[in-house]
Amino acid sequence: MERIDKVKSIFESRPEKLSRDSVPSAVIRRLPRYHRYLTELLRQNRMRISSSELASMMRVTASQIRQDLNRFGGFGQQGYGYNIRMLHAKIGELLGVSEGFSAVVVGAGNLGRALVSSQMFERRGVQRLALFDVNPAIIGTSVAGITVLPYASLAEYCREHKVSIAVLTTPKEASDEVVSVLLSAGVRGVWNFTNKELRVEDPRVTVENTHLGDALMTLCYEMAKKRTEGEEI
Amino acid sequence: MERIDKVKSIFESRPEKLSRDSVPSAVIRRLPRYHRYLTELLRQNRMRISSSELASMMRVTASQIRQDLNRFGGFGQQGYGYNIRMLHAKIGELLGVSEGFSAVVVGAGNLGRALVSSQMFERRGVQRLALFDVNPAIIGTSVAGITVLPYASLAEYCREHKVSIAVLTTPKEASDEVVSVLLSAGVRGVWNFTNKELRVEDPRVTVENTHLGDALMTLCYEMAKKRTEGEEI
Repeated sequence: MERIDKVKSIFESRPEKLSRDSVPSAVIRRLPRYHRYLTELLRQNRMRISSSELASMMRVTASQIRQDLNRFGGFGQQGYGYNIRMLHAKIGELLGVSEGFSAVVVGAGNLGRALVSSQMFERRGVQRLALFDVNPAIIGTSVAGITVLPYASLAEYCREHKVSIAVLTTPKEASDEVVSVLLSAGVRGVWNFTNKELRVEDPRVTVENTHLGDALMTLCYEMAKKRTEGEEI
Repeated sequence: MERIDKVKSIFESRPEKLSRDSVPSAVIRRLPRYHRYLTELLRQNRMRISSSELASMMRVTASQIRQDLNRFGGFGQQGYGYNIRMLHAKIGELLGVSEGFSAVVVGAGNLGRALVSSQMFERRGVQRLALFDVNPAIIGTSVAGITVLPYASLAEYCREHKVSIAVLTTPKEASDEVVSVLLSAGVRGVWNFTNKELRVEDPRVTVENTHLGDALMTLCYEMAKKRTEGEEI
């Protein structure tokens, strides 16, 4: 009877309302990694995985996995492991994959072109719409099937297409102006690659600052540490 | 007398051996951000800053700043604030800026070109040396003053120039082979941008996996959360 209840609860747990409240940002930052591993497991046609197997794949502890996933409601059932497809779907839902977000990239330099060419948007349920630049020489050309549009039309375009996310790869001097254009056009998410850390006081707006150089410094830190340890040995 | 001792200790603290031992990775990941803010303060010709002013600029607590920086030895003196130039230099040193690291980029697609064109390497004391690709059409061309060299010469080049870091922007299918070439050529740091999380068991080697898509997912998570909250109000 208990067993039946458990099996039942696996199926019944699906329509539960997801809770994103008061989840520590450290946990949130781990979710995309779970999502990546689960995507890979689905590709391998795996159906179920225990927290300990997932933990050993991801090199974290099984108890961290259980703690992290339990915050969002019961994804797994003791003794049955996780249903990979369901867990993948739920984490994807939590991460906004099914929200129907759309994105434009502002700045068609190498980084803008790299981002717009990557599959990361579609893979995460975000529709890539357009690429904007001020350079007349590249306006009208196409990158990975996406046309470069004139920067002057950015506000109108965002309003018309109800763009949710703008990816900023402009020079940092331009970022303040671009952001004010974007926000007045209703864009609610800014993924900022300019060197300048961006802040928006409007609580409806989310900013994600990505400083690629920080990862380089972290790498150098670890390398310097190993070098010192090597000298000490 | 106590005052004089304090002033003395500011200057005497400089040659102290830096300690990187057992610092939690969360602290290490915050250091590049301190370094960025201090670089900006130096640009503004600022000399000193209190932990509370720095905290308010960075939107963290003053006690977190003091705790973080104290882990590496006394950077600041009560009542005097931090000497910005000294703090910047010490954090830079901790982060390996003065280690004389050098880097090559493997893969001359848009992302490889964007990385090699950015100032992030020089700014962090890492010398950009070369860009490698398999595509004969672009071998011999130049990106931001850096020549694209044939992939076939990668191992020899790394050995000859004692390359410390390789930045990986190849398709993920190629990453295992490229990494084994790099490691056998003495490269000790890999900054991995391929979609596949990379692991190297050799303790002398440091890997930094950068998954740009994870930042996009975090952004979407926050946007989805705000959307739900908006509906509830």
